[in-house]
Amino acid sequence: MAAVDSVSPLIGIVMGSRSDWETMQHAAAKLEALGVPHEVRVVSAHRTPDVLFDYAATARDRGLRAIIAGAGGAAHLPGMLASKTPLPVLGVPVQSKALNGMDSLLSIVQMPAGIPVATFAIGNAGAANAALFAAAMIANEFPDVAAGLDAFRAKQTADVMAADDPRR
Amino acid sequence: MAAVDSVSPLIGIVMGSRSDWETMQHAAAKLEALGVPHEVRVVSAHRTPDVLFDYAATARDRGLRAIIAGAGGAAHLPGMLASKTPLPVLGVPVQSKALNGMDSLLSIVQMPAGIPVATFAIGNAGAANAALFAAAMIANEFPDVAAGLDAFRAKQTADVMAADDPRR
Amino acid sequence: MAAVDSVSPLIGIVMGSRSDWETMQHAAAKLEALGVPHEVRVVSAHRTPDVLFDYAATARDRGLRAIIAGAGGAAHLPGMLASKTPLPVLGVPVQSKALNGMDSLLSIVQMPAGIPVATFAIGNAGAANAALFAAAMIANEFPDVAAGLDAFRAKQTADVMAADDPRR
Amino acid sequence: MAAVDSVSPLIGIVMGSRSDWETMQHAAAKLEALGVPHEVRVVSAHRTPDVLFDYAATARDRGLRAIIAGAGGAAHLPGMLASKTPLPVLGVPVQSKALNGMDSLLSIVQMPAGIPVATFAIGNAGAANAALFAAAMIANEFPDVAAGLDAFRAKQTADVMAADDPRR
Amino acid sequence: MAAVDSVSPLIGIVMGSRSDWETMQHAAAKLEALGVPHEVRVVSAHRTPDVLFDYAATARDRGLRAIIAGAGGAAHLPGMLASKTPLPVLGVPVQSKALNGMDSLLSIVQMPAGIPVATFAIGNAGAANAALFAAAMIANEFPDVAAGLDAFRAKQTADVMAADDPRR
Amino acid sequence: MAAVDSVSPLIGIVMGSRSDWETMQHAAAKLEALGVPHEVRVVSAHRTPDVLFDYAATARDRGLRAIIAGAGGAAHLPGMLASKTPLPVLGVPVQSKALNGMDSLLSIVQMPAGIPVATFAIGNAGAANAALFAAAMIANEFPDVAAGLDAFRAKQTADVMAADDPRR
Amino acid sequence: MAAVDSVSPLIGIVMGSRSDWETMQHAAAKLEALGVPHEVRVVSAHRTPDVLFDYAATARDRGLRAIIAGAGGAAHLPGMLASKTPLPVLGVPVQSKALNGMDSLLSIVQMPAGIPVATFAIGNAGAANAALFAAAMIANEFPDVAAGLDAFRAKQTADVMAADDPRR
Amino acid sequence: MAAVDSVSPLIGIVMGSRSDWETMQHAAAKLEALGVPHEVRVVSAHRTPDVLFDYAATARDRGLRAIIAGAGGAAHLPGMLASKTPLPVLGVPVQSKALNGMDSLLSIVQMPAGIPVATFAIGNAGAANAALFAAAMIANEFPDVAAGLDAFRAKQTADVMAADDPRR
Repeated sequence: MAAVDSVSPLIGIVMGSRSDWETMQHAAAKLEALGVPHEVRVVSAHRTPDVLFDYAATARDRGLRAIIAGAGGAAHLPGMLASKTPLPVLGVPVQSKALNGMDSLLSIVQMPAGIPVATFAIGNAGAANAALFAAAMIANEFPDVAAGLDAFRAKQTADVMAADDPRR
Repeated sequence: MAAVDSVSPLIGIVMGSRSDWETMQHAAAKLEALGVPHEVRVVSAHRTPDVLFDYAATARDRGLRAIIAGAGGAAHLPGMLASKTPLPVLGVPVQSKALNGMDSLLSIVQMPAGIPVATFAIGNAGAANAALFAAAMIANEFPDVAAGLDAFRAKQTADVMAADDPRR
Repeated sequence: MAAVDSVSPLIGIVMGSRSDWETMQHAAAKLEALGVPHEVRVVSAHRTPDVLFDYAATARDRGLRAIIAGAGGAAHLPGMLASKTPLPVLGVPVQSKALNGMDSLLSIVQMPAGIPVATFAIGNAGAANAALFAAAMIANEFPDVAAGLDAFRAKQTADVMAADDPRR
Repeated sequence: MAAVDSVSPLIGIVMGSRSDWETMQHAAAKLEALGVPHEVRVVSAHRTPDVLFDYAATARDRGLRAIIAGAGGAAHLPGMLASKTPLPVLGVPVQSKALNGMDSLLSIVQMPAGIPVATFAIGNAGAANAALFAAAMIANEFPDVAAGLDAFRAKQTADVMAADDPRR
Repeated sequence: MAAVDSVSPLIGIVMGSRSDWETMQHAAAKLEALGVPHEVRVVSAHRTPDVLFDYAATARDRGLRAIIAGAGGAAHLPGMLASKTPLPVLGVPVQSKALNGMDSLLSIVQMPAGIPVATFAIGNAGAANAALFAAAMIANEFPDVAAGLDAFRAKQTADVMAADDPRR
Repeated sequence: MAAVDSVSPLIGIVMGSRSDWETMQHAAAKLEALGVPHEVRVVSAHRTPDVLFDYAATARDRGLRAIIAGAGGAAHLPGMLASKTPLPVLGVPVQSKALNGMDSLLSIVQMPAGIPVATFAIGNAGAANAALFAAAMIANEFPDVAAGLDAFRAKQTADVMAADDPRR
Repeated sequence: MAAVDSVSPLIGIVMGSRSDWETMQHAAAKLEALGVPHEVRVVSAHRTPDVLFDYAATARDRGLRAIIAGAGGAAHLPGMLASKTPLPVLGVPVQSKALNGMDSLLSIVQMPAGIPVATFAIGNAGAANAALFAAAMIANEFPDVAAGLDAFRAKQTADVMAADDPRR
Repeated sequence: MAAVDSVSPLIGIVMGSRSDWETMQHAAAKLEALGVPHEVRVVSAHRTPDVLFDYAATARDRGLRAIIAGAGGAAHLPGMLASKTPLPVLGVPVQSKALNGMDSLLSIVQMPAGIPVATFAIGNAGAANAALFAAAMIANEFPDVAAGLDAFRAKQTADVMAADDPRR
């Protein structure tokens, strides 16, 4: 059974522009906390389409198990990655300026039958959840990740229960 | 390495009501075509909450690797399953009568940080894609599924290329 | 006839996270002003589902007459409480960051036939109104509450009439 | 303790136009099934405002415990009833032609602080649920209604469990 | 021909709460500038329904020619005024906190056939335009108002033409 | 005092295309029933802009008192008429194919400060109401129209009251 | 000056699936009527991404002046073509099943700064207009196209003027 | 072949009010950077309709190749320009106060068949992209512009590739 602490990244986190990092750092933080090796890249569907294609086309052979992609507005990055890799692609709609991320959400989630993108909530919560989902996907193979997830869940449950009176 | 053709289901497909089967059968059909063992159940978050909790709480021990859940309107089924199992939960918004599935979509995708639900497109496309995604999630472990997915993709690419003049 | 000033709470106010207190305090304040015994709890549908089930399942026997539940985003708390208790459940959509509470509203109000949730306006007004509605529900039994509501209404009418020139 | 089978209606069902009956009959049917005495009236906020005011102002003295009001478009009926009676008012957004009931929903649910309207889902489900909610409101006082509701719930749970394979 | 400078107001400006004055003052300012006698009142559809009915029912006899009504959220004021007076009623959707006035707009504009409300833009522009429209409605009878409107229009046209280079 | 039955039209009904007549005939029918002289024209903002300008620029001198304009999609007709005439312009959003008239509504109602368009509901109800509103605008001058409106209102009130039980 | 009737196509019409032809044929028909050489292809962003890249990358060298791309749902085709060619790309949102093309529209129009896509109306009107726009883009170079466009416009103006009474 | 550095402007940038300059300056800046001669004007569809008509009607003869028009709310400027000129018109929806530019977008993009307006994203990105698109439209004729566009694209691609780690 492969070790979780291998040097080679299992999850790729990509985003359409540097400004998306403010959102996508929440995905990286969750993977970091769970000890899941990952890499982080800015890859723009529209400004660096060839890089996007190359990134997606080589992802499986490089050992990645899934790609988390964040983008805003006419968010084509997750769907185009999915068109070029058999790996699961997880999409995070980044909150946009004018339409609050509704454009990002619909551009990511409304994929046609045949090429799926797993979509998460708009903004920081979606980024964190994409990472937790990616970890859950590989938890069957990596017991450390499964244990980490179980501990994370137990802690967040305990935290709510320990402080369930909002007036204090 | 586990055999794909094991008797025990790897994927659970659940839906909030029998009327959702018209949509969710597209998930079952895709898993069937790929030879992924699966089970199908009607489990209502609101009418059978105890069944839902029991289903989710025992899913991992029963050998499931993921749950695909379809629901419409105030669609609580995917999120509540996710709250009770560490397994990846995939949500399919079923098209609702009044609001065309926008209520279903937002009820499923806007999960708070901590409990992810991977969301797919409204309706049939989303159901099919949830199944393809579930297959991709286990493809690393089951080479037959990986091969099936690769063949499915190659065929759909070839189909478009073979008939790329819409006037004929 | 039961006394309004009984020690045991008649209304339960629950919310999905501590941050919802900023909104839900307006429900508590209204019940306080009307002298309706109530309790306040943080109960998360997704992070503490077992607490939610236990809270709802025991609510009637503990003497509660209704539950006011506030939640944001994919707001499953009110609907899941309603699935586990015969008591009336009143839902308050908390204003969400990206979609301004439209996701919260639809997740709460679009319940399927069979399990009702009474829904109020997004945000503070909804929280205050849920409390007023809960009071009106028990006013037939508790004359003090009825009198308090009548006085509240008379005062708000008088306040508008006493100051009906906005230029002064 | 008052008998459920009293002649005098406990719940008033009103609607803005005769065409709303197609939706609101689902409220009447549920009250009928539960043995809750009720009355049904067409009262238009815009075409018969004086009737509306009179209906609301006398409702409590006539023995009503709650009013269920259905309306579509710029749906003012529930809110204006609530402005003229201390009784709980339950609003049902009727699905409109152009905007699918989104206008009806927002016109009913977004009441300002001070005058609550309990809002239910758009269309038939909302009408049925308003009736179930009204019954739950009086269940504490009328054990027959409480028993009827418990039986209704038990049956709908059993129905789902008895037929949980959608392929059969 | 009646003199414009009569003491008795021709236009009534009403609003649902004092906070709406920030918006509705733009209606008053326009009528002031055009020399149209008017009155300003806070009348709440929900908190002072009897005042609203009385205001509307006596408006024609008091010499009003039209009523401009501003309200937010579930904005019932314009429609209910229209139900009680044969005078033209002009509705101004006040921008709401959560839904940016979309709820206000739909609650005002989607009136059923039979009782019209003339609706204007959300917020300040709508308030100003309702006043300009009210002035245009009486311009045929009051030449001074007609001249004032013509002068206002000529000036706003000249202003744009005199400064048509945005870089200066 | 001018006679209502003058030959010269007082109200102009214009629409962007012949297909809008299905909606706008409801405006013509109401004016017909009230005996208000009117004319009906297809004038396209985009296909016949010069006709639009000429129609608007000459409308006051030709004796029109108001223009009712119906249009769908990017509905520019009402606003452009308003930019070229001091007469009151009443806009009717025609229900569009893809967006159900939401595009028509926003294109008509969201006019900037300075040039008002009085907007009515999407579709047939809006067309009928625009005509009723136009009649109310001239009712002060034409007693026959005022009487007709009063009779229309009295009848629609009586109709509701005479048949207020929807089950019969 | 190049002849319009050259064999080589000047405009490429592409669409994401054969079912989009029902919409996109309106683009082809307009180019046909104007004598603009064009080609028609099904190219799927998600199922044939390599074909898409190749089509876009070679388009300028093959003599195309612009590409018209129609797609529905998460419509990535126009934006990805634009990322791979310096040619102007015109996007047509195809009406989708659940969300009526609002998803298609936002996925196409909300492109980030740097890679433009000119977007047209949802559905048939948008397809026809994209073709007219493409023709207008090359009209300066091809006098026959300019003349054809002028004639088309003159005719549609004359058609409205010749039949401007919708009652006949 | 005409020189790019001709004195006479090739592109007209117009906007509905001076406040739109904050958005539309991004169009001017892009044309400036590419050396495309252009002019900038405030032309209001509603306040200066005659100027609008004259501007559009003379644009082709004055040598313009395209017009970029920005407007907000009920944004009629782009569509009305298009109705009066055979030149390509590019529309930029300016972000509005209440509805975040959704009204602007729909008012511009939903043009009826026959008169196209090429629409770009809401706000600054749309303004910049309209300018890039206008440049691309004339690039075939002006090699300097083509070269400038190619250089711009190459640079933005290189910029992303040179700094593709958002953590640094």
